[in-house]
Amino acid sequence: MSGPVARLANIKLGGATQPDSSSSPAEASGNANIVPSADLGLIGLAVMGQNLILNMADNGFTVCAYNRTVSKVDAFLENEAKGKSVVGAHNDKEFIASLKSPRRVMLLVQAGKAVDEWIERLLPLLEKGDIIIDGGNSHFPDSNRRTKELSAKGIRFVGSGVSGGEEGARFGPSLMPGGNEEAWPYIKDIFQAISAKSDGEACCEWVGDEGAGHYVKMVHNGIEYGDMQLICEAYDIMKRGLGLSSKEIGDVFAQWNKGVLDSFLIEITRDILYFNDDDGTALVEKILDKAGQKGTGKWTAINALDLGMPVTLIAEAVLARCLSGIKDERSEASTKLRYVSRGSGKFEGDKKQFLEDLEQALYASKIISYAQGFMLMQEAAREFNWKLNKPSIALMWRGGCIIRSVFLKDITSAYRNEPDLKNLLFDNFFNEAIHKAQPGWRAVVSQAAELGIPTPAFSTALSWFDGYRTKDLPANLLQAQRDYFGAHTFHIKPEFASEKYQTGKDIHVNWTGRGGNVSASTYQA
Amino acid sequence: MSGPVARLANIKLGGATQPDSSSSPAEASGNANIVPSADLGLIGLAVMGQNLILNMADNGFTVCAYNRTVSKVDAFLENEAKGKSVVGAHNDKEFIASLKSPRRVMLLVQAGKAVDEWIERLLPLLEKGDIIIDGGNSHFPDSNRRTKELSAKGIRFVGSGVSGGEEGARFGPSLMPGGNEEAWPYIKDIFQAISAKSDGEACCEWVGDEGAGHYVKMVHNGIEYGDMQLICEAYDIMKRGLGLSSKEIGDVFAQWNKGVLDSFLIEITRDILYFNDDDGTALVEKILDKAGQKGTGKWTAINALDLGMPVTLIAEAVLARCLSGIKDERSEASTKLRYVSRGSGKFEGDKKQFLEDLEQALYASKIISYAQGFMLMQEAAREFNWKLNKPSIALMWRGGCIIRSVFLKDITSAYRNEPDLKNLLFDNFFNEAIHKAQPGWRAVVSQAAELGIPTPAFSTALSWFDGYRTKDLPANLLQAQRDYFGAHTFHIKPEFASEKYQTGKDIHVNWTGRGGNVSASTYQA
Repeated sequence: MSGPVARLANIKLGGATQPDSSSSPAEASGNANIVPSADLGLIGLAVMGQNLILNMADNGFTVCAYNRTVSKVDAFLENEAKGKSVVGAHNDKEFIASLKSPRRVMLLVQAGKAVDEWIERLLPLLEKGDIIIDGGNSHFPDSNRRTKELSAKGIRFVGSGVSGGEEGARFGPSLMPGGNEEAWPYIKDIFQAISAKSDGEACCEWVGDEGAGHYVKMVHNGIEYGDMQLICEAYDIMKRGLGLSSKEIGDVFAQWNKGVLDSFLIEITRDILYFNDDDGTALVEKILDKAGQKGTGKWTAINALDLGMPVTLIAEAVLARCLSGIKDERSEASTKLRYVSRGSGKFEGDKKQFLEDLEQALYASKIISYAQGFMLMQEAAREFNWKLNKPSIALMWRGGCIIRSVFLKDITSAYRNEPDLKNLLFDNFFNEAIHKAQPGWRAVVSQAAELGIPTPAFSTALSWFDGYRTKDLPANLLQAQRDYFGAHTFHIKPEFASEKYQTGKDIHVNWTGRGGNVSASTYQA
Repeated sequence: MSGPVARLANIKLGGATQPDSSSSPAEASGNANIVPSADLGLIGLAVMGQNLILNMADNGFTVCAYNRTVSKVDAFLENEAKGKSVVGAHNDKEFIASLKSPRRVMLLVQAGKAVDEWIERLLPLLEKGDIIIDGGNSHFPDSNRRTKELSAKGIRFVGSGVSGGEEGARFGPSLMPGGNEEAWPYIKDIFQAISAKSDGEACCEWVGDEGAGHYVKMVHNGIEYGDMQLICEAYDIMKRGLGLSSKEIGDVFAQWNKGVLDSFLIEITRDILYFNDDDGTALVEKILDKAGQKGTGKWTAINALDLGMPVTLIAEAVLARCLSGIKDERSEASTKLRYVSRGSGKFEGDKKQFLEDLEQALYASKIISYAQGFMLMQEAAREFNWKLNKPSIALMWRGGCIIRSVFLKDITSAYRNEPDLKNLLFDNFFNEAIHKAQPGWRAVVSQAAELGIPTPAFSTALSWFDGYRTKDLPANLLQAQRDYFGAHTFHIKPEFASEKYQTGKDIHVNWTGRGGNVSASTYQA
């Protein structure tokens, strides 16, 4: 227990050396000499944790830094945190003793077991009303559980999505806190001070109950998957469909970044396409086309299936990554499966018009993806009985995170105009936008099919839109099939209800007319 | 313990009455008077269980029927099983005592807890080498677990998919047994005798280890979802796109049923479209277009995501059911979202040609769906370390089950020709078929997008095909984006490897050239 580090709570400046008069036994028995001075204690000094601490310090808060491997605390205080309002702790009691009441403990450790272990370890040292914040990438059912378990013990749990990567953490992340709402008044100032700002508003508001914060972060990541896939499809169409160079495609993205698609991802796509390797050719063309998909995108798609919500665009984006992943098999397939069509396989229309169509296709598909994402969050709120703050969700995504865009400003407005908006497409702004975009969108999906360029996300978005706006889908036939082969029964459309077939009643029909109540068939395999 | 039922094992004929000389205590203490005569004991006398018993009896086996509610045993023996080689049991010991060794116990009870409860209950009465068969719709991880747990206790567990509904169970189901292979020699005769036959071959073979049987049944159901969705899309295109009547559409399906699409589902679709209500109009048009999706189709899609396999068609089919499910919202949307395009919105081409194209689109999409399904099963076998019997899987699906078709004969041939076939599309027959189908398939997807008819399954199949046959997908850009904003690194394409960028190495680039290792951006939200 020696070393040139400040570890007493009444020392505000990290790195400042001062004589250590406490002996180890004294520390272990209660740290009576430590004055609780830290506004928040943060555990986990990987880059995300470090940057959040520095961000908090820059905003006038005193933070106590702590880590499982204690040597990291010293290193941090001597280097990155030097001269800032950061103190350190070298054991659990010291850590707890340094915190003002109610204690605010934030975990930036690996999602899963490590979170539970830290909670277990801290619990005996905490008092009723203290707050534990999990800022990792936890799966929302874990946060549901932790909120409940800790609430029963008088501890207020917050599961907070943190987006924006290391850079965001340092200078303004998007923060999505949910859990025990009683904690919010005690962390609001810190969270809103350090978060990204958009038009002067903090990109951080209370999201909702239990795991709602991590849930919204999960959906955010799923939408990020979708946005990226849409951009990739547009790039592929320009490259292989129109034969444009990387520079020319970069120019198109630069142009798009001035319009409705203005966003961080379009901007970096432009930068990437302009970025040349030493030989003067675009580096992106040399990068292996093999993407992973083991994270939150997958969780979103699985949760959508579990809740029975048609979130098709994220699902296709995740599955497109899976397809990219089997590169060896695709390489083999590329030698065995060839393109065949009635056309020439070459684009023969007006390129300028088509590029405008492509912008509209990307825009429309993006609207569909966000509409689906909000439908999913709405259904989750219903399923888990959460109050969800929808206008704030869009606001939180406005700044700080990967999907930040001008577009999200319009979504924020839509939900501020009508917090109970049933669907984003019912908002006037997006309603007009989707109608305006349709002709170009249809042209692109149609052309891509003929040209042999894969557009899973553009296509599913259009199919979904055409399905969503359809009162009578062909699922009537599907229900008839199920009743035919499995006697699963069906309902009648209200407009065709009769004495014989009543609304809401389970109806079974003997389709074959050959007797028996169950399927029978002349088919012989 | 009285009643006019045969419950002694040496009585072969169900329903035959005979004096009961045993007292209850005697029965409880070992049923010394019962001669083990039953080839198999079946627990669970709902229709599926009853029909399987009758099927076994018809094939010369003696079956002991048992049920949690014992009165059902009596009722069954007095009615459906009367005069057949079926005996009954009224308590666990009697049931066990009636079975020949090694005892074969088949459970046809609700998937989940009930299966575990019965296993728990029977275990103390069974001997090493006895066999428990679960014929319910169990989720494959449960069957994985049960195989292992029971194997450790010397009991051989079999999880068997049973397909074909009540009719199939009675006269020839498709059976997909997996689990402890040591059990197979003891159940093979019964299973292959009662199963459906296709060209004289039993639609039942050993599938593979642990939960492989239930896994294959799950994928079967997923594929069934896909087949049904494809048929619905074809019907919708003919109805709303071409303006055909139900009768005319029925004629098309009748025609298709004579060609490559010849199958049970096409056949019943024809029947359904021909089936008129009392007023002389097609009943199917009156059926509510709202389908459920809580079962095995969903499991398949989720498992595909978990294993990272791009099984897009089943996923879209499940999600299409979800979209059908929100009928109220669709009805509202249909008044707020209108169709806009550059065209007239009416089909203006050659209908006859288009119907041929549609047949090819359906055929090609179906090939993709089965290719995806087999890829998934292959990956599962790798993941769970199962030996999977692929030629037999196709054979098992040839007859007895909902997806039975001539098509599956071609798949059986493909895997018999080359059991290690990497992909169905690499087989000569399907390779030719997919190339022949392409022009029409592209025309249909392209037309549907312009006409505003949703084709999520047709479209995703084509996009997948175009992606699968592409050596260089646009995921290179996606990897660049991930490296840009999150320093996630990328790999270089081998053909562009250099001293600076080596194959297989994790590479990070400072894309902005503005210093720092992490993303930076001029973008301001």
